[in-house]
Amino acid sequence: MEHPFHYFGYIAAILTTLSFLPQAIKKIKEKNTEGISLIMYTMFTAGLFLWVIYGFYIQDIAILVGNIITLLFAVIILSVKLKNVKTEG
Amino acid sequence: MEHPFHYFGYIAAILTTLSFLPQAIKKIKEKNTEGISLIMYTMFTAGLFLWVIYGFYIQDIAILVGNIITLLFAVIILSVKLKNVKTEG
Repeated sequence: MEHPFHYFGYIAAILTTLSFLPQAIKKIKEKNTEGISLIMYTMFTAGLFLWVIYGFYIQDIAILVGNIITLLFAVIILSVKLKNVKTEG
Repeated sequence: MEHPFHYFGYIAAILTTLSFLPQAIKKIKEKNTEGISLIMYTMFTAGLFLWVIYGFYIQDIAILVGNIITLLFAVIILSVKLKNVKTEG
């Protein structure tokens, strides 16, 4: 049986990922990325990508899955932000 | 020498933590937590706390330090949010 503390990791991943989703979905639906800094969000997305790689390397499901889901939404939001920056000119 | 992939974790922690700080500091300075959902932020903070415990258990500096710093700011923001909720009544 897996050591119980792994459940801390799974629950942590679920909580931080779930808490991120409503705002992410709202931003994607409304295509409203006004309050977002392009630099900060690029850093955030790059950081998530590295967490995914790191999670894969250390074979840690919690890190891997939690960050893959968040990365997916972050990439979509970043692309909306980039489109908005272009149209704002 | 530490396996190089550990640096992925350190850089990931630095990027996701740094990208979080400007908005966190702004919210704390301006005491403006309007755009924040109390439930989501409580979930986020609880998730960060569990990441810290998990990072401690698996002895992972990147997870531990990155999430401790983020947790510190999240707890401050959550307390500001709770105060604002009380005053808004």
